[in-house]
Amino acid sequence: MQRLKGFREFFPEPLPPGEEWSCDLRQYIFDCWRRTARRYGFREYDGPPVEPLSLYTAKSGDEIVSQLFNFLDKGQDAVSLRPEMTPTVARMVAAAERAYRKPIKWFSMPQLFRYEAPQKGRLREHFQFNCDLFGEEDPAADAEVVALLIDVLRALGLTEEDFVVRLSSRKAWQAFYEAEGGKPEAASEFFQAVDKMEREDPGTLARRLAPTGVTAEAVAQFIDAGLPTPELQGILDNLTARGLGAYVKIDYGVIRGLAYYTGVVFEAFDRKGEFRAIAGGGRYDNLVSVLSGGKVKLPALGFGMGDVVLALLLRKRGKVPSFASTIDVMVLVEDETLRVDSLALVQRLRESGKAVDYSLTPMKADKQFKRALEMGAAHWARLERGPEGVILRVKDLRSRTEQVGTPDSAASLV
Amino acid sequence: MQRLKGFREFFPEPLPPGEEWSCDLRQYIFDCWRRTARRYGFREYDGPPVEPLSLYTAKSGDEIVSQLFNFLDKGQDAVSLRPEMTPTVARMVAAAERAYRKPIKWFSMPQLFRYEAPQKGRLREHFQFNCDLFGEEDPAADAEVVALLIDVLRALGLTEEDFVVRLSSRKAWQAFYEAEGGKPEAASEFFQAVDKMEREDPGTLARRLAPTGVTAEAVAQFIDAGLPTPELQGILDNLTARGLGAYVKIDYGVIRGLAYYTGVVFEAFDRKGEFRAIAGGGRYDNLVSVLSGGKVKLPALGFGMGDVVLALLLRKRGKVPSFASTIDVMVLVEDETLRVDSLALVQRLRESGKAVDYSLTPMKADKQFKRALEMGAAHWARLERGPEGVILRVKDLRSRTEQVGTPDSAASLV
Repeated sequence: MQRLKGFREFFPEPLPPGEEWSCDLRQYIFDCWRRTARRYGFREYDGPPVEPLSLYTAKSGDEIVSQLFNFLDKGQDAVSLRPEMTPTVARMVAAAERAYRKPIKWFSMPQLFRYEAPQKGRLREHFQFNCDLFGEEDPAADAEVVALLIDVLRALGLTEEDFVVRLSSRKAWQAFYEAEGGKPEAASEFFQAVDKMEREDPGTLARRLAPTGVTAEAVAQFIDAGLPTPELQGILDNLTARGLGAYVKIDYGVIRGLAYYTGVVFEAFDRKGEFRAIAGGGRYDNLVSVLSGGKVKLPALGFGMGDVVLALLLRKRGKVPSFASTIDVMVLVEDETLRVDSLALVQRLRESGKAVDYSLTPMKADKQFKRALEMGAAHWARLERGPEGVILRVKDLRSRTEQVGTPDSAASLV
Repeated sequence: MQRLKGFREFFPEPLPPGEEWSCDLRQYIFDCWRRTARRYGFREYDGPPVEPLSLYTAKSGDEIVSQLFNFLDKGQDAVSLRPEMTPTVARMVAAAERAYRKPIKWFSMPQLFRYEAPQKGRLREHFQFNCDLFGEEDPAADAEVVALLIDVLRALGLTEEDFVVRLSSRKAWQAFYEAEGGKPEAASEFFQAVDKMEREDPGTLARRLAPTGVTAEAVAQFIDAGLPTPELQGILDNLTARGLGAYVKIDYGVIRGLAYYTGVVFEAFDRKGEFRAIAGGGRYDNLVSVLSGGKVKLPALGFGMGDVVLALLLRKRGKVPSFASTIDVMVLVEDETLRVDSLALVQRLRESGKAVDYSLTPMKADKQFKRALEMGAAHWARLERGPEGVILRVKDLRSRTEQVGTPDSAASLV
């Protein structure tokens, strides 16, 4: 009765033997994604995890369709678990854009799926932070989105030593392709070839380029020159004004695989080159129009950042905080005649906002105390019978100081 | 290019015409679920949204299997989108319980799925708050879990006037069934009949009861008497000690449909009876053993609370907060020669933790100001050229007061 291959279970820390995915770390990452997006004025949305298959075939990005987790549902409809969020959000915006001021700045944190031949360590799902901006074609929008990408990683403790955003442009590549006499009908193959060149050998690149009419040498020269277009220069200047210039560079080695990109494209990488891309995105000015049958035209751009590479990178760079403290107060019940009062104390402390635990059934005092330490409690609290009635004793387990008060004073003592 | 029937899209507020699911309200509910569970010392976990079909057939709850969103994947494996979380968490705990102290207190907020004949307004997915406690058979554990259920609803602003938890017991029902001479092989049908009796007419109940050997009159008398077992009395006393006695009552009209319950069962309902159950759960002391092939025996109980009924109830009772304020500060850029400095100001404010927006491109001053009001900004901030250089002016839009400082002082002025 195992879980399916390629799917993860997320456990609370400390992780059981053999498990590597921490729900505490996941939540830490999710909180950081959400908090940073909100600081940028982005609003949260979500869509269905199951979509009509045609939503993905409409864009005719055949590369990704072959990897879909698609199936026939009981009603014999062709559907798919979502492999990416962009078509969903483009559809939602196309349908609802009149209700919102422009630019529309939205984010989401969907779980995404693909169906690949099972391979060791290859997952069939991941979570992806998606940020998109609709309704603004000025490069100032691109800069705003890239700045958000950078600040999310900074909020997770990563610095300019740890990562860089490589900025490129489909328009620059298109101009190059035309100038080099590339065959118009092979443009899509050309983008695919360049997208894969860093992961494949020179022979494969040459084979892929052959039908396009552009040489590997010309491609290499274009990347080496790395001359920014005015658009890219505008983005660099904007990010520099924010103090984020050190986090970006022009790098035409990035082109992105998906068919729908139309302008600026970018990917974030760890500086040491140990991992796959941390995040990637770009402009897709035509997709809303395609998905709305031409009814709505809205320039758009966005990026996705997955949880898998990010978690591995944070671990490797020692940027994962400790999740050892799970409660604020352990209520010790040493005198069982005070259990009813202790339950009232637990309730009072929880109502004051504290995370509180206690032993559900009678337990030896030293074992309760040990448990308080194991759970990383900041305090313990205990009711005691004194000469003048029941008193409350609270111990701060960090400063080792004790305080005594009435049971009613609990919230003020911890 | 529509979404699939029975699936929701969650939009940021204000909602577009025709849409009823607010992502802001959803996140408000999620935050409340998570915060309250943590106050109770519950830890978060998650499992795969796709599971082997056998995970659900193993329990042989045929009623639910017929409604599964199951399918054959590309590898011809029989799988299902998860219809409930309990089998998943029982498997996770069975596999990993040695790594955790008992009792294990876990929560999750999965999206769940079912495939029913399309009906108006019937959804094929919902989100469900799941809280489970493993490793404690004492009724003190049942009380802890029911208290958490109550406090989640209280944290959402609902009171004892709004809802009540109806407490029942499979054991009490089993004892009644045996005392009445019910046929052992029809026990499961008997529980199903009782589970449905509140939603069906007396004729149907009589037909369902016929093969069991127990009469509808005996059932009605048992429910009317409502005598608490010692176990249920213990739970009532425990909740009363916490000051939560007014939120529960013994009510054998609740029995729960699922096959795996073994002891106490409960459901939360709105007092006015306008909605289906808000939440439901109970003890399932054998499920971990069943799913681990008898290797792990752990008493267990838990509950699930869906987001759909809850959102409808909160709306109906006027307990939904306003989500009109989406940013803290609007930075006004009225002098375009100060745009670079304004970007630095935006960055500084965001780094101080504020949610900040600004116009990406040049915009008339009055329009920027109007936008600040529309977005519910608490402040606007503006750079101005003065006789002694650039100054920062900040206006508190609630108190209508203005402050002036240097651009560096931004974080201290808002």
